[in-house]
Amino acid sequence: MTELRITDLSVTELADRIQRREISATLLTETCLDQVGALQDRLNAFVAIRPNHVLQQAKACDEALANGLSTGPLHGIPVAVKDNYWTSDFPTTGCSKVHQGKSIGSDATAVAKLRQAGAIIIGKTNMHEWAYGATNEISANGPTRNPWNTNHITGGSSGGSGAALASRMVPAALGSDTGGSVRIPSAGCGVCGIKPTYGHVSRHGILPLSWSLDVAGPMARSARDLALLLSVIGGNDSKDPATETFAGIRSVGADGIDPSRLRLAIPSGQGFEAAADVKRTFQQALESFIGLGALVQDIEVPHMKEGFGAWNVILHSEASTYHAEFLKTSSSDYSDSVRIHLDVGRCLSATDYLKAQQYRAVFNRQVNALVSGFDALVLPTLPVTAPRIGQSQVSFGGKKISSQDSMTYVAWLANFTGHPAVSIPCGFGDNGLPVGMMLIGAAGSDFRLLEIADAFQQTTDWHLMAPKAQ
Amino acid sequence: MTELRITDLSVTELADRIQRREISATLLTETCLDQVGALQDRLNAFVAIRPNHVLQQAKACDEALANGLSTGPLHGIPVAVKDNYWTSDFPTTGCSKVHQGKSIGSDATAVAKLRQAGAIIIGKTNMHEWAYGATNEISANGPTRNPWNTNHITGGSSGGSGAALASRMVPAALGSDTGGSVRIPSAGCGVCGIKPTYGHVSRHGILPLSWSLDVAGPMARSARDLALLLSVIGGNDSKDPATETFAGIRSVGADGIDPSRLRLAIPSGQGFEAAADVKRTFQQALESFIGLGALVQDIEVPHMKEGFGAWNVILHSEASTYHAEFLKTSSSDYSDSVRIHLDVGRCLSATDYLKAQQYRAVFNRQVNALVSGFDALVLPTLPVTAPRIGQSQVSFGGKKISSQDSMTYVAWLANFTGHPAVSIPCGFGDNGLPVGMMLIGAAGSDFRLLEIADAFQQTTDWHLMAPKAQ
Repeated sequence: MTELRITDLSVTELADRIQRREISATLLTETCLDQVGALQDRLNAFVAIRPNHVLQQAKACDEALANGLSTGPLHGIPVAVKDNYWTSDFPTTGCSKVHQGKSIGSDATAVAKLRQAGAIIIGKTNMHEWAYGATNEISANGPTRNPWNTNHITGGSSGGSGAALASRMVPAALGSDTGGSVRIPSAGCGVCGIKPTYGHVSRHGILPLSWSLDVAGPMARSARDLALLLSVIGGNDSKDPATETFAGIRSVGADGIDPSRLRLAIPSGQGFEAAADVKRTFQQALESFIGLGALVQDIEVPHMKEGFGAWNVILHSEASTYHAEFLKTSSSDYSDSVRIHLDVGRCLSATDYLKAQQYRAVFNRQVNALVSGFDALVLPTLPVTAPRIGQSQVSFGGKKISSQDSMTYVAWLANFTGHPAVSIPCGFGDNGLPVGMMLIGAAGSDFRLLEIADAFQQTTDWHLMAPKAQ
Repeated sequence: MTELRITDLSVTELADRIQRREISATLLTETCLDQVGALQDRLNAFVAIRPNHVLQQAKACDEALANGLSTGPLHGIPVAVKDNYWTSDFPTTGCSKVHQGKSIGSDATAVAKLRQAGAIIIGKTNMHEWAYGATNEISANGPTRNPWNTNHITGGSSGGSGAALASRMVPAALGSDTGGSVRIPSAGCGVCGIKPTYGHVSRHGILPLSWSLDVAGPMARSARDLALLLSVIGGNDSKDPATETFAGIRSVGADGIDPSRLRLAIPSGQGFEAAADVKRTFQQALESFIGLGALVQDIEVPHMKEGFGAWNVILHSEASTYHAEFLKTSSSDYSDSVRIHLDVGRCLSATDYLKAQQYRAVFNRQVNALVSGFDALVLPTLPVTAPRIGQSQVSFGGKKISSQDSMTYVAWLANFTGHPAVSIPCGFGDNGLPVGMMLIGAAGSDFRLLEIADAFQQTTDWHLMAPKAQ
């Protein structure tokens, strides 16, 4: 490991040092902006950045602290925000041509909560057009490139946030997740992300993809940072009805984890295949964790194929409904790949949709019963490391599927069920690209999952590794 | 008013007299069965009845009481059950040819709760085929006839329950309501019914029509009886997820109503037109109530036409989904009118359905805001008295619409919004057929509405009047 630089520090460490005035928000923000300046052309992680505007806020943070005022636990921390969140001071385009240059003039609830906690929104990150895809190759702003190997995709749709974190441009970011879009680029870029329980974080002010699947979540470089960020952005919001029906999110536990008492399950069988190097890497990492005493059991999750089909029907139906008006006026501003998805959605009947939702209820009862017997289901986040840019297909476990489908191959499950799911780095594949480990837990166990991930990170340093290329 | 006979007594009075052993459950049940025997051929209210089976239960009730045992507040009370509720001891057909003679072998949750409270299920009542219509003319068992004039319909789809109550065959019945099916025959037959708040009563074991609109509810001859029956059948049930998300139903208030402090609203404008005799009868009845001191205000409920359209899309989409499998195998066992509805439903797209549900959310926010300012919205349940059997169209307020559409003309509103709605008799039209008054209240105010209806019934005797024909 190389010596830690300021851009390597965690949110928790940075916030603490700023509070103690060991480093200034201005220095931190300048350092982040320098890193963006050095790497943006190579990675294309950001689609909007305003250095002077941001530095003014950093100076104001420092002045406030000098006067004994702190706005909250993220005082002076630069956070990158995916381009589908409304931001009062940046355009919000979803990286679609339809919205290019458009500003909403107000903040998404999660963004407003970050600002209330003292965070500085440093810029908007690149994403898969409309979040309707998981490679981050399709974007009105061009593809995002993987910091570990710029010939490879980041995974998406929150790929810009993943690249910005891995390349040390920022210590924290926001993503959104409808079929894995927080966890996929987290795994692809070797950083950490959580898709919280459905309804835990308000989606108000986030361009929707599929409202019964969409979840907003933070991305960072450690599980502890995710817990801090989630505690800031989570909670009820009258502007997102889904948050009103969900109660019982626990605050961060102070007890910590006793690894010898953990009950972990590894799903196997159809729908859980993975490439040999990913499997091996994951298993080695897990064994080091098992060495701490956890009980691990293989389980089967039946009907993955049918569940994936129903997830697709719901996704395309809801997305087509949201996009119906835009398509009438701006059809030519859509990429072909997104427009084809929407055309599929328009062909679905009310009965197709309702049968998919009915199947979802049945499927989810089965998965709930499975999940409730364990602290977490543990599995590789992706069946492969990030494919090359332009690579149409990947092979693994005797299968040959599109790069797109390989990204959501297992990640869709937690959106379909609403369960929380965390992705953390756990090693590297044969090509030197990161491998992610996913933990899925019972509804509401978000912070418990992060505690388990933190226990793993206390004994490993995969999450501290940075791409050499920088 | 004629002298009260045993069949004229309310549930509350009957239960009390049985407990005090002034009358026996056997005498009551025999008297009810006699009334069924005398009038069934004219009214076609029941589709299944088992006298010996029912009398055995009545005898067992009497023996239990003789031994000091009472099973609950409905001990020995005969209750008629609409033919779409599962009953362990009767077939459940939904009055469709598809299910003729089929028995499920277990009870719907509401039926089981009635039995636990001591009620005797006396038989199954006629209904509109599959509950998919509001006239009760279309039924595998033939049309139900109105006890006030057998040339007229009862209104539906719980028309058999309405006819059985009005003709004093039973003191209590169950109905179900997707667009008014409890309240329409209650108004048409001059009896009382409540569509409780969505989620208040379990639908487990009730053949579904449209699950985001379907509500189970009791019917009787007084608001007090409805409160007793609702307190028995209501409450959470793990077998109906809708009941799990709804909390806050209050128990029957002991304080009673101070009429001088009531705030009532009368909706007017598009969607609230009614025939002159219905309007006049309703207004006269309301004025007698206003005489008690209530404050009454005219209000407008905007977008009734658009709301009705969205309600239709949701109804047909969900019904078509439920019926898809039956239609494949038993298409010829459907009536033409129901099959046409289902064909419409099959042509609806996922986007049609989702846009209707989105519109519902917007519409309901507006209605919630309106309703929350009042103790109740008060209006005629139906714009007309019950049309003649075979009458295809009705005219009122400058409109000419189908008899079917006149029945749901305003009743659909409370299913779309989920609000509780009560119908009680308030007089008679020019043709001598009953007129119903509907009270709609805020979600969860079910018992409050019944208290208001009870206050009305304490000073009027419309609910005590019986058809002369018997």
